[in-house]
Amino acid sequence: MSIKALQDQLADFADRRDWGPFHTPRNLVLALTGEVGELAAEYQWLTEAEAAKAMDDPEKARAIRLEMADVLIYLLRLATVVDVDLDAAVREKLAINESRFPPA
Amino acid sequence: MSIKALQDQLADFADRRDWGPFHTPRNLVLALTGEVGELAAEYQWLTEAEAAKAMDDPEKARAIRLEMADVLIYLLRLATVVDVDLDAAVREKLAINESRFPPA
Amino acid sequence: MSIKALQDQLADFADRRDWGPFHTPRNLVLALTGEVGELAAEYQWLTEAEAAKAMDDPEKARAIRLEMADVLIYLLRLATVVDVDLDAAVREKLAINESRFPPA
Amino acid sequence: MSIKALQDQLADFADRRDWGPFHTPRNLVLALTGEVGELAAEYQWLTEAEAAKAMDDPEKARAIRLEMADVLIYLLRLATVVDVDLDAAVREKLAINESRFPPA
Repeated sequence: MSIKALQDQLADFADRRDWGPFHTPRNLVLALTGEVGELAAEYQWLTEAEAAKAMDDPEKARAIRLEMADVLIYLLRLATVVDVDLDAAVREKLAINESRFPPA
Repeated sequence: MSIKALQDQLADFADRRDWGPFHTPRNLVLALTGEVGELAAEYQWLTEAEAAKAMDDPEKARAIRLEMADVLIYLLRLATVVDVDLDAAVREKLAINESRFPPA
Repeated sequence: MSIKALQDQLADFADRRDWGPFHTPRNLVLALTGEVGELAAEYQWLTEAEAAKAMDDPEKARAIRLEMADVLIYLLRLATVVDVDLDAAVREKLAINESRFPPA
Repeated sequence: MSIKALQDQLADFADRRDWGPFHTPRNLVLALTGEVGELAAEYQWLTEAEAAKAMDDPEKARAIRLEMADVLIYLLRLATVVDVDLDAAVREKLAINESRFPPA
């Protein structure tokens, strides 16, 4: 699915719950922080070797997958609210990185 | 652009720089934390009213947009490395939220 | 209590549980991220006015207080593990800030 | 130095710069997030072995130490602003952890 289609779906989900007033930029950034914290917590006590195999455990994989979904959901909500075209933003950033980090 | 196409583009960018060995799950989660911290910093001293108008300032808008791109880039790299289908993960999470938060 | 006395108490607490091997710098930074995320989540949907009065609600106050304790606990554990004198580090940082931000 | 003495010093530093109006709970939580993100960034590309030796490099050690100071500074400012006794909060949390995690 395209990023924009996903944003539309999330906007519709929020609208049907009247969540618009809560989805201010600062609220969404705090929510994003919370979700990244939950994702970090999934990896906090794992060795590098354990982390590399974390997805082999179905329960752990589900937890990691859903935390990643939460991070993406709040990032996409923020993009909608502040009207950022994430596709274009990533291209803009990659162009910067192309010159900062020339390929080997 | 689809999420998967964007992931492919980022994977290619990393591969051409031999960044693969650095892109372990824990490294990427720490990098994601760093970028969310930079995004939070853009909003830290703004009132709600100022935050709502932050994108009217071209320099501020650029900073916010590029931080959002960085967050997405590391999240997508993590999705590739741990082989999570983010489209499916968001759908799975929305189904959970549908039953947790019935529409008004 | 002094910061060092608190660090000693936390080191003793960890030692009695054989947590030493888990308390590597990167693990503690990920744990710190998780706790800051939980603290952020306590404030994510509050208006500025609600946030200013959040401590009037005993249950909310308890949650915020305990999340702040968790952040401090992991920061102090990290200070012990990497052997940073936090008192001195804060003095060093304040000296830098004194010259960067002269008083009004 | 005691935590409270450090809080007094930071309060005085902020007062002399008229920073009081900026130090709302949500602003300080966002600032704390930003500093934890910078601390995470110091560790993001290090292996566990490199992270264990990071303090041997004076420049890296200074960066880590000052990021830790920043995290503590914002946490202590928040404690002052929301009137949390961090000593007592850590004792309260350790009492909870004593029963959750009995010593081996």
